[in-house]
Amino acid sequence: MVYPQAPLTRIQTYLTGYFKILEKLRLVLLGFGVVGQSFVKLLLSHSADLFNDYGIKPKVVACADNGGIVTSNQGLDLDRLLSVKKKKKSVIHYGSSESSSILDVIENMDAEVVIELTPTNIKDGEPGKTHIVTAMKSGKNVITVNKGPLALEFPSLVELADYNRIAFKFSGTVGGGTPILEFAKRCLKGDRILSFEGILNGTTNYILSKMFEGLNFSQALQDASEKGYAEKDPTLDIDGYDAVAKLVIASNLVMNMKSTMSDVKRTGIRNVQASDVTKERKKGNAIKLIATCDGKNLTVEPKAISTKDPICVDGILNAITFTCQHSGHQTIIGKGAGGMETASSILRDLIDIRNIIRS
Amino acid sequence: MVYPQAPLTRIQTYLTGYFKILEKLRLVLLGFGVVGQSFVKLLLSHSADLFNDYGIKPKVVACADNGGIVTSNQGLDLDRLLSVKKKKKSVIHYGSSESSSILDVIENMDAEVVIELTPTNIKDGEPGKTHIVTAMKSGKNVITVNKGPLALEFPSLVELADYNRIAFKFSGTVGGGTPILEFAKRCLKGDRILSFEGILNGTTNYILSKMFEGLNFSQALQDASEKGYAEKDPTLDIDGYDAVAKLVIASNLVMNMKSTMSDVKRTGIRNVQASDVTKERKKGNAIKLIATCDGKNLTVEPKAISTKDPICVDGILNAITFTCQHSGHQTIIGKGAGGMETASSILRDLIDIRNIIRS
Repeated sequence: MVYPQAPLTRIQTYLTGYFKILEKLRLVLLGFGVVGQSFVKLLLSHSADLFNDYGIKPKVVACADNGGIVTSNQGLDLDRLLSVKKKKKSVIHYGSSESSSILDVIENMDAEVVIELTPTNIKDGEPGKTHIVTAMKSGKNVITVNKGPLALEFPSLVELADYNRIAFKFSGTVGGGTPILEFAKRCLKGDRILSFEGILNGTTNYILSKMFEGLNFSQALQDASEKGYAEKDPTLDIDGYDAVAKLVIASNLVMNMKSTMSDVKRTGIRNVQASDVTKERKKGNAIKLIATCDGKNLTVEPKAISTKDPICVDGILNAITFTCQHSGHQTIIGKGAGGMETASSILRDLIDIRNIIRS
Repeated sequence: MVYPQAPLTRIQTYLTGYFKILEKLRLVLLGFGVVGQSFVKLLLSHSADLFNDYGIKPKVVACADNGGIVTSNQGLDLDRLLSVKKKKKSVIHYGSSESSSILDVIENMDAEVVIELTPTNIKDGEPGKTHIVTAMKSGKNVITVNKGPLALEFPSLVELADYNRIAFKFSGTVGGGTPILEFAKRCLKGDRILSFEGILNGTTNYILSKMFEGLNFSQALQDASEKGYAEKDPTLDIDGYDAVAKLVIASNLVMNMKSTMSDVKRTGIRNVQASDVTKERKKGNAIKLIATCDGKNLTVEPKAISTKDPICVDGILNAITFTCQHSGHQTIIGKGAGGMETASSILRDLIDIRNIIRS
């Protein structure tokens, strides 16, 4: 059974191809660490796909790091940008003609999308928060993987985005490359999510997995540091703040809660004893740092769960189970961090913004 | 930090509310077994949500089962439809004025969506295939959870849908209520799926889980029958045909393969020996019926996988891992069957069709 292609569809295909040429997206990149550089590498390696599959030709018109900001209305040469960063540590040596302040560039540069990639700061959200607010007020769409501003002020940032009628995307803040937020918003339509719980921090999960294998807390932490999974100051992970920030973002987006970090009951893994891990192991359980949202209460705490539970994953994996009214429990598992993984979430958000601008 | 709501956004909200009243979706329901009845119950319990959240007021204008078809241009009374089916076994006793043939109704009834829910037949796909083709040719959008027609003729059915410019949705054919196909198509945009593998049949997974616990094949099959997980003739499940059908649908949709059932190398679980299960168990493995697509080859066969692999789930669960170029392995786990679960996938598809009609 083969049917001929409809003539109208064919004409449409040609026309779409023609108009594709007009669709450019000018990007301002704030922060050029591992994720920023991976994103630029993705743009380079995927330029043909992005044009053919999605009709976009992104141009990076500004890029900032600790050293300052460089700009080009024609678009920066991405290979040169990567090489300057690698050899001279800052993009400032790229050599653009005039120097401007970052805020000035965000406000006045002709661009469609500001991509905020500065490090997460859960104390006051800066400098990310000011970057995001400035971009929104100047009518630019925003993508961020920076958890700080969202964990501290999710409700007001989303309201500001709505007020300025711009798209605000942050799928990389929870789950890195694993599309946890997308899954909940897009795939579970028509059903009602009643609650969710999961492992949202890879570092603590690695440590607890090692403790399950027999190490005590200090040995496991040392192992995680040696493998590069734990920061020099591991407080953000170990004491649960990173999981709290992700829980806040997910609870706002998925369950429409108006929560911030102070609404979460938090216990880290510092006091998990090797003896407790062993005791639970004998019962068929593992102790995991579990983030829970039941629609009212938000909690991050070490909990014993059955090793047969689908969210009982090992190593640096993240896992989350959504409990839905009709379709039951849905679990999604993936790597919750990594430069290229998180960069892929930015590309996903960019394609979404293209669709929003177009419609 | 609180910002006032934009006046324009508020006006838009009012206008959208007003125009919502106009959006009706008239449905033709073909097949009224467990899934069909669950779907009607969902429509009844969710009518307020569907109107408020999605602006739709679905009406069932025709419903068919083995006994025949009943119609009403004003919309059938859904409570009465359920009660007639329960008490008198067929909707035909609902008592519509004139009798028509099912194909006549599909072709001539004023309706936007035909929902095809007759049982899966993997020999020739009938009567589902004829229902679907007739609906498409008369310009009606189609939702189905019937695997037969798609497993046998995916490429030509999708082409016929395109030719007639109608929406064709079948998210419940793989994973039941678990949105496996949606996840791959919507959440992994901007990345490239290189391969996938998973457990796509709950019945065989239940049997193999019981064998892992120590039963032999016949004992485990008997247990599955007693629990209602295996059909009287369990061939479709046990010999891998059900998993093959789902693999074909997923490989077409996710990897753009033009495959049908005959392209799959298939081995069922009938010859899995208790001694093999025990031997693998000692190595930390479990034997599972794994469906694999590497972009070229399609296979369904019993394989030993590590019990630590996220897809190594127990009981009637389904699990699938997508391997992506940038974001790595993404696993999704959920119940792969069930009346209400599968009905929720139809509601999801219906909301999608509303969005397509609207845009």
